[in-house]
Amino acid sequence: MTLQIGVIGTGAIGQDHIRRLTQTLSGAKVIAVNDIDAQRARGTIAKYELDAKLHEDPHSLIADAGVQAVLVTSWGPTHEAFVLAAIAQGKPVFCEKPLAETAAGCLRIADAEQASGRRLVQVGFMRQYDKGYRALREVIRNGGIGEPLMLHCAHRNPTVGESYTASMAITDTLIHELDVLRWLLDDDYISAQVVYPRRTRNAHAGLADPQIVLLETARGVRIDVEVFVNCQYGYDIQCAVIGETGTASLPEPSSVLLRSEARVSSRILTDWKERFIDAYDFELQAFVDGVKGRGLSGPTAWDGYAAAVAADSCLLAQKSGKVETIAMQKRPAFYAPD
Amino acid sequence: MTLQIGVIGTGAIGQDHIRRLTQTLSGAKVIAVNDIDAQRARGTIAKYELDAKLHEDPHSLIADAGVQAVLVTSWGPTHEAFVLAAIAQGKPVFCEKPLAETAAGCLRIADAEQASGRRLVQVGFMRQYDKGYRALREVIRNGGIGEPLMLHCAHRNPTVGESYTASMAITDTLIHELDVLRWLLDDDYISAQVVYPRRTRNAHAGLADPQIVLLETARGVRIDVEVFVNCQYGYDIQCAVIGETGTASLPEPSSVLLRSEARVSSRILTDWKERFIDAYDFELQAFVDGVKGRGLSGPTAWDGYAAAVAADSCLLAQKSGKVETIAMQKRPAFYAPD
Amino acid sequence: MTLQIGVIGTGAIGQDHIRRLTQTLSGAKVIAVNDIDAQRARGTIAKYELDAKLHEDPHSLIADAGVQAVLVTSWGPTHEAFVLAAIAQGKPVFCEKPLAETAAGCLRIADAEQASGRRLVQVGFMRQYDKGYRALREVIRNGGIGEPLMLHCAHRNPTVGESYTASMAITDTLIHELDVLRWLLDDDYISAQVVYPRRTRNAHAGLADPQIVLLETARGVRIDVEVFVNCQYGYDIQCAVIGETGTASLPEPSSVLLRSEARVSSRILTDWKERFIDAYDFELQAFVDGVKGRGLSGPTAWDGYAAAVAADSCLLAQKSGKVETIAMQKRPAFYAPD
Amino acid sequence: MTLQIGVIGTGAIGQDHIRRLTQTLSGAKVIAVNDIDAQRARGTIAKYELDAKLHEDPHSLIADAGVQAVLVTSWGPTHEAFVLAAIAQGKPVFCEKPLAETAAGCLRIADAEQASGRRLVQVGFMRQYDKGYRALREVIRNGGIGEPLMLHCAHRNPTVGESYTASMAITDTLIHELDVLRWLLDDDYISAQVVYPRRTRNAHAGLADPQIVLLETARGVRIDVEVFVNCQYGYDIQCAVIGETGTASLPEPSSVLLRSEARVSSRILTDWKERFIDAYDFELQAFVDGVKGRGLSGPTAWDGYAAAVAADSCLLAQKSGKVETIAMQKRPAFYAPD
Repeated sequence: MTLQIGVIGTGAIGQDHIRRLTQTLSGAKVIAVNDIDAQRARGTIAKYELDAKLHEDPHSLIADAGVQAVLVTSWGPTHEAFVLAAIAQGKPVFCEKPLAETAAGCLRIADAEQASGRRLVQVGFMRQYDKGYRALREVIRNGGIGEPLMLHCAHRNPTVGESYTASMAITDTLIHELDVLRWLLDDDYISAQVVYPRRTRNAHAGLADPQIVLLETARGVRIDVEVFVNCQYGYDIQCAVIGETGTASLPEPSSVLLRSEARVSSRILTDWKERFIDAYDFELQAFVDGVKGRGLSGPTAWDGYAAAVAADSCLLAQKSGKVETIAMQKRPAFYAPD
Repeated sequence: MTLQIGVIGTGAIGQDHIRRLTQTLSGAKVIAVNDIDAQRARGTIAKYELDAKLHEDPHSLIADAGVQAVLVTSWGPTHEAFVLAAIAQGKPVFCEKPLAETAAGCLRIADAEQASGRRLVQVGFMRQYDKGYRALREVIRNGGIGEPLMLHCAHRNPTVGESYTASMAITDTLIHELDVLRWLLDDDYISAQVVYPRRTRNAHAGLADPQIVLLETARGVRIDVEVFVNCQYGYDIQCAVIGETGTASLPEPSSVLLRSEARVSSRILTDWKERFIDAYDFELQAFVDGVKGRGLSGPTAWDGYAAAVAADSCLLAQKSGKVETIAMQKRPAFYAPD
Repeated sequence: MTLQIGVIGTGAIGQDHIRRLTQTLSGAKVIAVNDIDAQRARGTIAKYELDAKLHEDPHSLIADAGVQAVLVTSWGPTHEAFVLAAIAQGKPVFCEKPLAETAAGCLRIADAEQASGRRLVQVGFMRQYDKGYRALREVIRNGGIGEPLMLHCAHRNPTVGESYTASMAITDTLIHELDVLRWLLDDDYISAQVVYPRRTRNAHAGLADPQIVLLETARGVRIDVEVFVNCQYGYDIQCAVIGETGTASLPEPSSVLLRSEARVSSRILTDWKERFIDAYDFELQAFVDGVKGRGLSGPTAWDGYAAAVAADSCLLAQKSGKVETIAMQKRPAFYAPD
Repeated sequence: MTLQIGVIGTGAIGQDHIRRLTQTLSGAKVIAVNDIDAQRARGTIAKYELDAKLHEDPHSLIADAGVQAVLVTSWGPTHEAFVLAAIAQGKPVFCEKPLAETAAGCLRIADAEQASGRRLVQVGFMRQYDKGYRALREVIRNGGIGEPLMLHCAHRNPTVGESYTASMAITDTLIHELDVLRWLLDDDYISAQVVYPRRTRNAHAGLADPQIVLLETARGVRIDVEVFVNCQYGYDIQCAVIGETGTASLPEPSSVLLRSEARVSSRILTDWKERFIDAYDFELQAFVDGVKGRGLSGPTAWDGYAAAVAADSCLLAQKSGKVETIAMQKRPAFYAPD
């Protein structure tokens, strides 16, 4: 049986997921497409030679009897409404980040999903599907380093454009750590602080870069995340977990070891798309397999909510220079971790 | 369009490829199955819930009008006949190692394929699809280390069973290096020598383990391959290319870096199946995409022939203790590298 | 010419320096020894077969016309008086940490040294003589990573005894980073903050371990130092400097790379004495050579003062939980860096 | 007590040892100097401000009653005579490589030393004093990898001058491996073979570079040593020991890890003098300490003989292209390893 999928939003990420479903993954088919720009939707259908219906109205796509699952890859502010509509139709929905514009919006989705009685929502936090983070989590869970006490992390991009603002350091960059570290530790954040190191001269005039975000979890784990989006040298994601008896670090991507010109060296990626390319495949295959099989198991609406709450406090901390509380509602049993 | 595939042979590797085509890869479907043991073929159809016809006769499967491409994963001695039959039908065929029992058999296949006027055969040398070897080849081709002069390689297994014989060190173990190193260098072997180091006490009584195979290529590159199949500590594949201006080494598999018990360490795989698991997916997806698109581009019948000739000389060298010539026929233009 | 040295204090570190001067280094000789415990001084003379005079009174040793330079390795609270006495005699003096019990005491020494008109004091901050830190500093100075923006450091000991207190995390452990990082950056600290991660269960009941110390420098560099003295797995010193165009890390000690039991691994030291053993030799040889040659060039009385001021603020920050100012006096031209 | 040393030969290596004894090491003093060029000897005395007597005749230096030990750093062909003269005087002698021009000459020295009844000769094979090789040997001896079965080694220089000949690849380059590998394994060589890979275009016209030397030991260990003296990229010494249960590799020199320009990299040395600089200090300090204390323990006259015999067979193998026997006399009990 092939899962019949409707896609709302055919921008870059929407097209990428359509390509994935059509040319790489197994067991799914795009049979309906919508975009606010009908011309772009039509072009996408042609480009990927889809046997798919063009819906002018996203809600008609969601209601289409042939559509068994929905992908929401439209503009962020529209996510909440489309996800709620899919839940109302009882249809599984994969929604790109952010799940909703506000923490309240995320909660509304979580409430609707709980009311529906089963998991229908998977959020596009792909790092949970990265083999490296999975291996790191396994080491922690197997007791390889004892109880985690501290995390030292870095999220470095070679450069960002003029349109990148300080708050995007939280909502576009740190957001990935906010999701994946919580999942890594099975823990929740309780406070955030932001400190500003000396500015690099390679950032555009309006941007304080780098920033260091200090987080504290309910169990007392202290996390520092260096966010440095003009580091010049590469796209470099680091995560070291310091436990009671040892430390464990996120694997570096595999690379040829070169001895040349008086250096032993290996390559650092420069394009973020390459870094987690497999994770994008895995998350979407997991969605397809989950819908067809034993239910969804990936990032939940609650994960979307948790990331939103933490991001809000980090934004506050960016401005206040103080330690800000991260106050989440109590997690419903429905979202208890496996 | 979904490629309709018929599979001959439903042993371990056959079932693995069926699983791959059915649950992981994109664009193909198993619609016909044969095995010398019809019961096993039937069980496989049930296990993977295939919508496939059971053929009692492999040649009827090959002739089946619905079958657009054939997978040969049966017992080695049967490969040649099935591949030739597929060629006779003008059908693309993916054949597991060995392509034929003898170099002469490989040549017969190459002749038939040439007579057919287009590439129809892909041999299951999956290492050419390994990302690590691909990256290594790219470094060489881009001139990153100058012209290659020497290769130092190792093929280590943790342990082998009593049924493993000295000649299997060539035909089952070294065979992978024989294929991939030739492809890595775009070069041909001209001689082989085998030397026997001190025996490990961890091999069974009848087995000289380790062995070192010394190869020479037409361009004068010297290769040493350590074959050590009872190394105890892991499944470890190493390949260092020494060029005129630098050296390049096959990437180690990614792994969590652990600091624990006074050691910095990372994991070595112990199961060979894990080591090249992605390469198996890539080779078969490439076959499917090639058949559906711009033609086959993977390991050719000529590659199968070249590996067979080299293996024959290595077997001779194992016994003679001398430098043995590796004499291949001239490569037809049909098989000129891309 | 052999430099004639008098040593005050023959405890562990005193004896170690005597052994060094007598059996390892070049150009110096211990000719006078004092200890508050004359018996211990006598035993030391015998043990190292010194041709040295036993002084019952430390000040008589300092005044001894044969003594050309003084080593102060006595109990901390006595350092200031002995160093001042040596300066009064116009004799070069090597003093172990701490230079004085208080920042004010360090300043008194600096004042006396300036009044003497030439450098007479070298403080025993041996990390400035570690080859690794020296190489790191060279990379920074050569512009290899652009201007430094952040430092991520760790100081980990496998375990500490019951007598180790929280304040010792600053005065005995962090003190090394306080000295060496300032030297590495040619910069001064302006604030300190201490945060407490989840406690390890492997520390004794009274000790909050680990701690994270956050420092800020005059140029805006942000430093985080993880102090973790019961990390179990080894003695591990880490220092990564993040600059505008790249990062540079303190070299790991050289170690045999082992492939064994499904791990690639190298050794981590467990004994702090091994980690900087060469640096101890280099600092003392530099003192000897400096006295005999072109003057002292190692850690100055001002460095001793700077470390004392920073440590005082860190101790405050440990208790207040707040960001504490580090306010140093203006550096005299006498102590301008080379 | 200071050991009084006489030095014969004040060329580059002679001056380097004099500097070492005078400015770096402990417990020795150069009190007599000879060189075939008296002017050069005089200049050396001035340069290092030695309180030393100039001997016009080397044999008068050896006979000088004040001279307690002799350093032979003169032209190779003179070594044998000077070492024999020192033995005749009952004086300990440190002799640079080669101990003698021929294996027969080495034997004459060994015979004379045995006749003297105690160890008087230390040969300047400094690699036995390298910390890396020492650590590697310890791992092997402690059973960390089981019994050694194979060694894969490389000796790479960035470049050599026009005067470097093919035979120097053995006598000047490989000679270090011939000594140190034998010591590493506590084993003796029994055969040698040389194969010639594709020539690099970066060697001068007359030189076949690289070469691969294959050695076999009495216990059956197989060794391959790649000798590549125009590798361009650095001075790189590699040694991997493959044992029954694991592998161990010579540590890489410590280096700052840099992340810059899309590469993680560390430095490779380019100057051979830097690579083993500490080992030179250790070997000579060991000689001084041995003479003054419990006797010599470093490389023996027998080690000099063994290296000479092996080198002779390698030179033969270079020309014959065949496997050549390495036939040593039986080791006298006098030279039994510790």
